[in-house]
Amino acid sequence: MESHEAYSQLEKKIKRISNLSDAISLLSWDSQTIMPSGSSDVRAEQIATLSVLKHEEMTSTLIFDLLAKIDTEELTDWQRANVREIDRIYKTATALSAELVDARSRAQHHCEAVWRMARKDSCFDLVAEPLNQLLEITREIAAVKADKFNMEPYDALLDEYEPGAKAENLDTIFDYLEPRLTQLLQNVLEHQKKNNYSDISFQVSEKKQKKLGLKLMAKQGFNFQKGRLDKSAHPFSGGIPDDVRITTRYDEQDWASSLMGVIHETGHALYEQGLPRAWRGQPVGLARGMVLHESQSLALEMQACRSREFFTFLAPVIAEEFGVTGVNWSAGELHQKCLRVTPNCIRVDADELTYPLHVIFRYRLEQALLNGELTVKELPSAWNEIFMNNFGFMPPNDKEGCLQDIHWYDGAFGYFPTYTLGAMAAAQLFSAALKDKPKTLSNLEKGDFSDLLIWLREHVHSWGSYYSTDEVIKRATGSPLDPSFYISHLESRYMQ
Amino acid sequence: MESHEAYSQLEKKIKRISNLSDAISLLSWDSQTIMPSGSSDVRAEQIATLSVLKHEEMTSTLIFDLLAKIDTEELTDWQRANVREIDRIYKTATALSAELVDARSRAQHHCEAVWRMARKDSCFDLVAEPLNQLLEITREIAAVKADKFNMEPYDALLDEYEPGAKAENLDTIFDYLEPRLTQLLQNVLEHQKKNNYSDISFQVSEKKQKKLGLKLMAKQGFNFQKGRLDKSAHPFSGGIPDDVRITTRYDEQDWASSLMGVIHETGHALYEQGLPRAWRGQPVGLARGMVLHESQSLALEMQACRSREFFTFLAPVIAEEFGVTGVNWSAGELHQKCLRVTPNCIRVDADELTYPLHVIFRYRLEQALLNGELTVKELPSAWNEIFMNNFGFMPPNDKEGCLQDIHWYDGAFGYFPTYTLGAMAAAQLFSAALKDKPKTLSNLEKGDFSDLLIWLREHVHSWGSYYSTDEVIKRATGSPLDPSFYISHLESRYMQ
Repeated sequence: MESHEAYSQLEKKIKRISNLSDAISLLSWDSQTIMPSGSSDVRAEQIATLSVLKHEEMTSTLIFDLLAKIDTEELTDWQRANVREIDRIYKTATALSAELVDARSRAQHHCEAVWRMARKDSCFDLVAEPLNQLLEITREIAAVKADKFNMEPYDALLDEYEPGAKAENLDTIFDYLEPRLTQLLQNVLEHQKKNNYSDISFQVSEKKQKKLGLKLMAKQGFNFQKGRLDKSAHPFSGGIPDDVRITTRYDEQDWASSLMGVIHETGHALYEQGLPRAWRGQPVGLARGMVLHESQSLALEMQACRSREFFTFLAPVIAEEFGVTGVNWSAGELHQKCLRVTPNCIRVDADELTYPLHVIFRYRLEQALLNGELTVKELPSAWNEIFMNNFGFMPPNDKEGCLQDIHWYDGAFGYFPTYTLGAMAAAQLFSAALKDKPKTLSNLEKGDFSDLLIWLREHVHSWGSYYSTDEVIKRATGSPLDPSFYISHLESRYMQ
Repeated sequence: MESHEAYSQLEKKIKRISNLSDAISLLSWDSQTIMPSGSSDVRAEQIATLSVLKHEEMTSTLIFDLLAKIDTEELTDWQRANVREIDRIYKTATALSAELVDARSRAQHHCEAVWRMARKDSCFDLVAEPLNQLLEITREIAAVKADKFNMEPYDALLDEYEPGAKAENLDTIFDYLEPRLTQLLQNVLEHQKKNNYSDISFQVSEKKQKKLGLKLMAKQGFNFQKGRLDKSAHPFSGGIPDDVRITTRYDEQDWASSLMGVIHETGHALYEQGLPRAWRGQPVGLARGMVLHESQSLALEMQACRSREFFTFLAPVIAEEFGVTGVNWSAGELHQKCLRVTPNCIRVDADELTYPLHVIFRYRLEQALLNGELTVKELPSAWNEIFMNNFGFMPPNDKEGCLQDIHWYDGAFGYFPTYTLGAMAAAQLFSAALKDKPKTLSNLEKGDFSDLLIWLREHVHSWGSYYSTDEVIKRATGSPLDPSFYISHLESRYMQ
């Protein structure tokens, strides 16, 4: 078989696996949005079967044989990048035995189910043992991959969410960020005391909130021919590039939270919808990783839509949609309220400034848990202590402390850091977009996102997984990921 | 390997295939309800991949080997019935080459897509050639199966929807029914002339209609922990026993149509939800076939919910839910309106009495198409002629004639007869239920469906595919499927 024929067969095989993945995405979206409550067991079985089939297909020797037959010199650049990605995914898939994958899947499923009860009752003891078991398996997986790919165990976990990321770099970045963020937080809290915030509570129906959300999604360039907005307990972005399913939640007392949720998920959706169309169903056509993904949601939510310019557009739209008037609903007043910084126990409710501090301490705690410096039993008190150091008060209970996030209880160790790397990347990319397209911000006053979208399409979305995250950022902004953009952004926004 | 071990392995293998089927069901439901319009191509690819995987799994030699190792004497009755069903499905799956299955799938997809345009423009010529190709492949499939299983070609097609059904029996039944239905129709139309029907048009919002639908579903015993009600272009019942998804449509000018749609699909859903729990994921635990399935929807819709007793319950509920009063909304008036017979071009809008006539002439036409007595080109005029003979007028165009139903254009030859066999079975089963539980009808005056549901659970639902359709009917009613019950029911209802 010649090289071209082997490559063509490989693409076909991979497309079939991609269809399986896509089916899993839809089943999973459905289970998080509209599935009847009593159907979770059968759904878990369906997803498990499809996952096993996918794993069997991805580890088949046919892929190994085809990869061996391909002469990458004969391929186009994109084909070569695709083979590189397929090779990486194949090696990752074959690194772990089916037994270990299965054991992790069961431990995750069990721990997550127990966590839901533990969180409900705010009782960490309930979930300590399941978490311990899941941690054991996670350590084993990290060790196997670290050994096979000659990398640090924690990096092997990071790699699942952000290929190529390294704790060594994270440490440098977070060591730079943390003292600056802490200092900035003190300054901002001091600075804020000078302002009066009128607390207006205003009830907005779910229907009105949804209508506004859909309107903004359209303004931002969401393609409704290939996607939907729905409701779920926690906002998320799911589905696939040609069928993106984003969700939000509606609190009638807090319309801003739902709106910012929609804007955030729309950023994720635009990335998916802008991935290279010619490479659908091939690894090189997929989103690069969680860092760039989060950078796209935050470029919209935090960079574009917390700008004064966007609020100039938003205020009259809100006045019309909600039927409100008065100085409380002016662009200036709404904007100032939206930028208010208030340390809070809950990460997902955190403001832009305290959010990275939530992430950094989770990063340190998960490393300590993984390398054994911290036992599971000690987690609640370690959490409270580090939280106290950061914010000067203690969470009232574990529900609002170490039980709040699903990540660890679902086995997602190594995920948290990508939130803050994403926020950094968003600041850096947005700053470059403003240089390249100087009208980006002033256009937002008219609700016109086209300059921003065109720039993101050109410099991020359309590259899929062709380049590494670092390469994308460097090519788009002229320098590698650099936390100073992020600090500058925060300082100029919050200390003006 | 001993027999028990082989049986246990077989169950496991089949369970995996069942999970694949279940995933396909959900993907398909989604595509018919909430999927964005631009996502149909990728969804078709996902479903195609899962279908190919399912076919590969179902035709694997492992199943053949395991079946060969099982000594059915050592099994329980239900295990033996399960092996019988697996063997049947395996033989059916292996009868056709992968190429033929693939060719049919493509021809269906193409013909259906063209049909949508042809129907929209009421232009049969557009779809004549695709239909011809699909018919060719269908003939080939029928011939292969007929040869392999030593049966008539048309019976091979029927078998996909109703295992074991034979045209020979259908002919006997339809030859009995047709003249009686035609005569009855004339009598009823004559009889109706004596009545005055006040035409009240009353607009009911979708929200109110949905609330009423959900209320009735609950009364009828639908388990909302394991199912949902949604909206779609055409009402249908989808999903799986532990996650039944029924749909309806809402016409604000015609609340009764949506309501009867909900009741009909709830009948299908109750069958699924009542299938034997211990046999989930195994063929013996599945619904027996389309005849019993339709009998369950019609037992609710036509037998129970078009009774005078049900309307005694329904009228005050409607008065409350819709906020209506007056003699037009009395039980008697509503009931009489709902039983009005009016020959109509469209099958899905047909009343209980004309519906079987629609089915019988489609049955005769599809046989003629398959055996070559009728060419595709001749179909529109043959349709109009036979329609004229039945109802005394002509469809104004092909859209309301031979282009109205998706079935043939989707390759579903042999499906239509199951509607009328189901209606017959519903009449016979309901009559037996009334004998066994004499309060069934009077309980409906209170909206109490429990006697009916318990009887259907015991005599139909809980048997899954353990018995044949004929056996289920005979055991439940004391006699084989007999069209005289159906005629008696129609005569007593419409000629009272």
